[in-house]
Amino acid sequence: MEQKRSSPNCIGIVGLGLIGGSLGLDLQSLGFQVHGLVHRSSSAEKAKKRQLAHIISTDFETLAKCDLIILALPIKELLKPSQELINALPKSAIITDVGSVKEPVLKLWSKLHQNFVPSHPMAGTTDSGVEAGRPKLFRNRPWIATRDKNTSPKALKKVEELAVALGSRWITAEAETHDQAVALISHLPVLISAALIKTLETEKNSSVFNLAKALASSGFADTTRVGGGNPNLGTAMMANNSSAIIRGLTSYNHNLQEFEEDIVNKNWNRIQKELEQTQSIRKDIFNN
Amino acid sequence: MEQKRSSPNCIGIVGLGLIGGSLGLDLQSLGFQVHGLVHRSSSAEKAKKRQLAHIISTDFETLAKCDLIILALPIKELLKPSQELINALPKSAIITDVGSVKEPVLKLWSKLHQNFVPSHPMAGTTDSGVEAGRPKLFRNRPWIATRDKNTSPKALKKVEELAVALGSRWITAEAETHDQAVALISHLPVLISAALIKTLETEKNSSVFNLAKALASSGFADTTRVGGGNPNLGTAMMANNSSAIIRGLTSYNHNLQEFEEDIVNKNWNRIQKELEQTQSIRKDIFNN
Repeated sequence: MEQKRSSPNCIGIVGLGLIGGSLGLDLQSLGFQVHGLVHRSSSAEKAKKRQLAHIISTDFETLAKCDLIILALPIKELLKPSQELINALPKSAIITDVGSVKEPVLKLWSKLHQNFVPSHPMAGTTDSGVEAGRPKLFRNRPWIATRDKNTSPKALKKVEELAVALGSRWITAEAETHDQAVALISHLPVLISAALIKTLETEKNSSVFNLAKALASSGFADTTRVGGGNPNLGTAMMANNSSAIIRGLTSYNHNLQEFEEDIVNKNWNRIQKELEQTQSIRKDIFNN
Repeated sequence: MEQKRSSPNCIGIVGLGLIGGSLGLDLQSLGFQVHGLVHRSSSAEKAKKRQLAHIISTDFETLAKCDLIILALPIKELLKPSQELINALPKSAIITDVGSVKEPVLKLWSKLHQNFVPSHPMAGTTDSGVEAGRPKLFRNRPWIATRDKNTSPKALKKVEELAVALGSRWITAEAETHDQAVALISHLPVLISAALIKTLETEKNSSVFNLAKALASSGFADTTRVGGGNPNLGTAMMANNSSAIIRGLTSYNHNLQEFEEDIVNKNWNRIQKELEQTQSIRKDIFNN
């Protein structure tokens, strides 16, 4: 895709991990000038070898000429930005982020910068770090912006153009709606899946554990996949989207308890109907 | 594989659905004479077209000459066999089953036949019915026998030889251990996965549902796969392995509640440690 006249001349990326590094590769391919800021000089060296940006530095000055800056930081750092970083962001630049939780990000950053656009490209693999970035990560993936009434429409439009140029599906939503939706489809699954693994662990010293291990196949593998994923990522989800997760858990516990009561009361007709319903909803979600 | 001298001359299969039909195809390939008994004449016609056995009939007489008979019936029918079926089983034949729950099967059938071997080939797809059977379904899959003190060692050995000839991994276990293990790795996952789908359904009339639907990807797809599976199969699991499932659910609820308390108490260090543990256990189970 050719760079448009109105496109930013220089895009800054803060952090060159999976998301930042992948952005760097694609944005260079699209013809943008890309400046990458990283924390450690060892990361800078690796990122330079992988050519994740045109200029890669640990010096905040590297952002000075950028007119669009993407904060590709872990949510924890995004929510506790250093004063140095805040000062390094040009006032006229458009600032966006890639955080997976939007209410706290919007709340903080809309005060820190006049042109802040809260956004969340939903792409990811289990990899992380400066070696993880790869081309075309965002293609056909959703990229959600959660503007509020203070968000500059012009800034929003620029971020949308960028997301679309990267091949993403652009979606806008309320920050609260976003956080509740990702709690249900991403964060809650980690918890319920991890609790299942723990339930097996409880049997660790019995013959049940060894047999279960020998028999476990695709069904158990699928259901436990996200609960056996990256612990840092899982903990960050829980810590930063707590209230939406607790709300989801309350509803979840209620549903599971209903199943349990139906089993205790031998209410097989109701279980059959419930499972017909869940089968139909899942088909609807994944169009199959 | 060549048929051994000591092998059964004629193998009977009662029911030619996914499991029975697949057995019929492979056993014929192995050189056995295979007689299939089905309930409806319409099924018999379809099974004949698919050549699932040498002789296919709705007449119980078809089992008369068989010296090994596999009851490939749904668990519900297996636990309420007709008197006609019971009478049709030759006294000298070895009888085995393919039921996914073993305590109630063993309890009932060890009284009904002197040469009964309770067994469970763990192979399956989401397909069912007379069109579902396919070759090599059992290859590299576990096949568990849950004998008790009354099980004939000679009969057990014959079923083992058959399972091994079909390419299965032969495992023996106590019926109770088996039922608790499959509750944890197969039946409980269906419940916790279905409850997650129901939790999303609760939001059906809100903007959260539509956004969640748009954002749902591989993590949610994996975690909800078994909860969106065959409702008849799911209901049969709940109905026939209730006590093991309830035991598993009690432990599961406790584990999930601990996670919830950790979130409420902002105990992120503990969550991190728990998720490191679940990651490590899952790696151990699936050797990756």
